[in-house]
Amino acid sequence: MGKGRLEAFTDGVIAIIITIMVLELKLPEGHDVSGLLAAAPSFLVYALSFVNVGIYWNNHHHMLHATRQVNGTVLWANLFLLFWLSLVPFVIRWIGEAGISPLPIAGYGFVLLLSALGYTWLERAIIAVNRDNGVLAMAIGSDWKGWLSLAGYIAGIAFAFVSPWIALACYLSVAIMWLVPDRRIERRIGTDPDSAG
Amino acid sequence: MGKGRLEAFTDGVIAIIITIMVLELKLPEGHDVSGLLAAAPSFLVYALSFVNVGIYWNNHHHMLHATRQVNGTVLWANLFLLFWLSLVPFVIRWIGEAGISPLPIAGYGFVLLLSALGYTWLERAIIAVNRDNGVLAMAIGSDWKGWLSLAGYIAGIAFAFVSPWIALACYLSVAIMWLVPDRRIERRIGTDPDSAG
Amino acid sequence: MGKGRLEAFTDGVIAIIITIMVLELKLPEGHDVSGLLAAAPSFLVYALSFVNVGIYWNNHHHMLHATRQVNGTVLWANLFLLFWLSLVPFVIRWIGEAGISPLPIAGYGFVLLLSALGYTWLERAIIAVNRDNGVLAMAIGSDWKGWLSLAGYIAGIAFAFVSPWIALACYLSVAIMWLVPDRRIERRIGTDPDSAG
Amino acid sequence: MGKGRLEAFTDGVIAIIITIMVLELKLPEGHDVSGLLAAAPSFLVYALSFVNVGIYWNNHHHMLHATRQVNGTVLWANLFLLFWLSLVPFVIRWIGEAGISPLPIAGYGFVLLLSALGYTWLERAIIAVNRDNGVLAMAIGSDWKGWLSLAGYIAGIAFAFVSPWIALACYLSVAIMWLVPDRRIERRIGTDPDSAG
Repeated sequence: MGKGRLEAFTDGVIAIIITIMVLELKLPEGHDVSGLLAAAPSFLVYALSFVNVGIYWNNHHHMLHATRQVNGTVLWANLFLLFWLSLVPFVIRWIGEAGISPLPIAGYGFVLLLSALGYTWLERAIIAVNRDNGVLAMAIGSDWKGWLSLAGYIAGIAFAFVSPWIALACYLSVAIMWLVPDRRIERRIGTDPDSAG
Repeated sequence: MGKGRLEAFTDGVIAIIITIMVLELKLPEGHDVSGLLAAAPSFLVYALSFVNVGIYWNNHHHMLHATRQVNGTVLWANLFLLFWLSLVPFVIRWIGEAGISPLPIAGYGFVLLLSALGYTWLERAIIAVNRDNGVLAMAIGSDWKGWLSLAGYIAGIAFAFVSPWIALACYLSVAIMWLVPDRRIERRIGTDPDSAG
Repeated sequence: MGKGRLEAFTDGVIAIIITIMVLELKLPEGHDVSGLLAAAPSFLVYALSFVNVGIYWNNHHHMLHATRQVNGTVLWANLFLLFWLSLVPFVIRWIGEAGISPLPIAGYGFVLLLSALGYTWLERAIIAVNRDNGVLAMAIGSDWKGWLSLAGYIAGIAFAFVSPWIALACYLSVAIMWLVPDRRIERRIGTDPDSAG
Repeated sequence: MGKGRLEAFTDGVIAIIITIMVLELKLPEGHDVSGLLAAAPSFLVYALSFVNVGIYWNNHHHMLHATRQVNGTVLWANLFLLFWLSLVPFVIRWIGEAGISPLPIAGYGFVLLLSALGYTWLERAIIAVNRDNGVLAMAIGSDWKGWLSLAGYIAGIAFAFVSPWIALACYLSVAIMWLVPDRRIERRIGTDPDSAG
């Protein structure tokens, strides 16, 4: 089976997730600037989520670009990732209703953690099917960014019950770390004539 | 007429269905874990629906891959399938409002049953246009999984009025049965040089 | 400019319209069958709208298949059509709130009428750019179905203030007339080697 | 990296934005024409937004058509543009709730302004990567329309606190200015055999 339809489906779902999040963003109350200021935290969570989903789209794009084969496990790992990403709009609504409080902020971290685990599973599944593709395997071999993300999310979930703002700082740090696109794969692709897609 | 645009349209609609379901998922009430636990059944219905729609996407993909011709009947059978799948988010909202109670759980089964009938119709319509395509016809000739799904959904609808939880167990069993992708078609495609898509 | 991106964008918007309509469908009230029966008219409007949008997708597909050139006018006529189609979910919500009553049912007819006018404008714009494409021009030359649709919608809007049910019967009649795909174009394409897409 | 997936993702997000806006459009109240008239301003904002997003789609299409290379900066400038466009449905909901009043109308101008800045950034980023592509650079070299848009939006935001209607007139004027598609690029593409896409 080719990877084209998987890529198109994933792009579609991610494009929808990133766009319908806005339907869950809470309106500012009242008619003055104090209402706007009160809505600012929700808006920041929205912006952070937009960037997070954008990062997944970007990295998914890079990884699939270097991929040549997909199988059933890759399909289901991908669907698992999409399942958890699909809950991001839900968490935005939850935070909009309940405010920057421990439970929804921990829930946000849980959704980000499971998404990251889904991405890791997908990565492993793709490497397993593309064993002969040295570029891909070597490129994502020492995935310290992935492990650091998991640690950051777990720390955030724990901190949420102490101070939800520290938890948000954890999630934000992980996002900033990823804002640099994964140049490891890009660089190796550039030097490997085989993987030109 | 080619099958490309039908595939793209169906993928688009299924990607949207699977993603907007989250807009219908009910928020947990209150600020403590008991509210989360009370929301767990809705969440399980959401997860089950996500998997069900994912299964349709996957099987639709396999079937269309082995298809070479489509006609008007195929188009309308496909639209009939999409109509019933489009009601899955509606049922999630209904269950979120009314709880795991007989009527919405029977309604869920009804939507799943009509979706399955739509898929069966689509299958028959595709076989009728691709009569010379022995791979496809033989591959889905003895469609015991399809018949078992219909039986499972009908049983679920009946059980919903006795215990909605037994009904959900019926729907879940059907989903688990389908989680194994339809290797019958895959296997035959692998041995038939004609159907390489 | 090619027609590919226009087709993809239109398919995307139509796929989204047909799918998000369900978010506007009103929940049945109460926990018994009487609540379901009371919701039946809304559900019928939903089903009729699903079929109508499906018909537009189908006919748009046929028309664009026979098209070779698009220009700025075609782009804006297409956007005008999509604008009015985008209001279909809104009308479903309106009918769900206000019931099968004169104003929303007339509004439904108005949206259908303007969509049909948009389609007619698009048709004319496409013919104007594809003057050398005899197949297309001849095929949709005597567009009695289009004119009958406009008449049916205008009649429906007028009747809505007498009886909204007669108005719905008008809209339904137009839909049934279109359920037969436009075989005029299909037939001519089949006999014209130039237009194979 | 190719531009294909960026184009497809952007088209997807813009198609979703333009379509889900309707979910945020407020229903007319009551059952008579006075309710409809009261809803007219919201409807006009909806129509203006539909046209604005359509203009972005159209101009993005023209610009990407003349583009040959994209890089990380282009990706992020594009995501920045999409972020601000994604807030258009939110502003429609806000105006629906709060009416044509200073704060939401200024907020609408702010979202339009930031979208325009995002488009300008994207334009600069694309020119930077396509330095050898004289067609593109010359074509959008003297971008007076872009600067006039920024001025119009800033004026609108300021006027919103005097009279929101004057602000809306500013936003409308910008939209009308853009309704003429960017023929500068089209014309040059027509005379440059290299950039045929």
